[in-house]
Amino acid sequence: MLPTCPLCDKLNRLHELPADELVWQFPHSVAFLGPWQFYTGYCVLVARQHYPELHVMPSSQRAVFLDEMVVLTQAIDFAFQPRKMNLESLGNQVAHLHWHLFPRRADDPETRKAVWIALDRAERDEAEKQRLQAASLARTEIASRIRAALNQMAAPTP
Amino acid sequence: MLPTCPLCDKLNRLHELPADELVWQFPHSVAFLGPWQFYTGYCVLVARQHYPELHVMPSSQRAVFLDEMVVLTQAIDFAFQPRKMNLESLGNQVAHLHWHLFPRRADDPETRKAVWIALDRAERDEAEKQRLQAASLARTEIASRIRAALNQMAAPTP
Repeated sequence: MLPTCPLCDKLNRLHELPADELVWQFPHSVAFLGPWQFYTGYCVLVARQHYPELHVMPSSQRAVFLDEMVVLTQAIDFAFQPRKMNLESLGNQVAHLHWHLFPRRADDPETRKAVWIALDRAERDEAEKQRLQAASLARTEIASRIRAALNQMAAPTP
Repeated sequence: MLPTCPLCDKLNRLHELPADELVWQFPHSVAFLGPWQFYTGYCVLVARQHYPELHVMPSSQRAVFLDEMVVLTQAIDFAFQPRKMNLESLGNQVAHLHWHLFPRRADDPETRKAVWIALDRAERDEAEKQRLQAASLARTEIASRIRAALNQMAAPTP
């Protein structure tokens, strides 16, 4: 834990989060429902331990962490059947290892572009910000569909 | 191989590529030096087999493929010591599994933003396109530094 890191701080205060934000707790990471629910199911998966880069995480831990990322991707894909999944680990603003998992809708007017073009506009344009935060379903419903998919995947096949 | 996929096609024509573009051949992927060498060391790592998404790749193959991605990231980091590595698997334009590995320079004027903001400008602005394609080193030198780092990492420790 790094005292100045906002993601370490968030991980320390999971009990304070609204129920629709905390989606799932994995052994090595925690999944949060992200703010931009125009991309229905958008999650941020945060590593429990503070590492600035994926490649400095110890390899045994990394393998499990990446499996968790893939499982969450699969659950989002199952729950919302997007046209495409976008997986991004940037950390340009907060260098604590995390994945942005953006499901891309088929009716996105900018389907060929990265989401950051629209999110950059949202920084200057309040209407655009609201469009990208608005969800077609309630946030609690989105979170619960992802959890249902994860539970189904975890269930033993008969 | 998908006959209509431009990345399948590229993998079929590796022998036709310039020496500075083909950086490394891994068992499950091939590393290419990308066009935007303002981000010195930027590589695109393409899965040898055609999968539209990471999570549909069989898990044993996926584990090796992700290790290759991490090893390449490490080599780029070692060779150019960027401020931050950005790892992105999008596939919005070509849905054949690949990673964009963007090393972010400390002197990038847009260090807090995703690279796609600048790359989107480059689509409309020829000067911006040239700025982002220009490399501070020759492309052959960039490719050879990444290969040297990979060779060093592969060498047994004495």
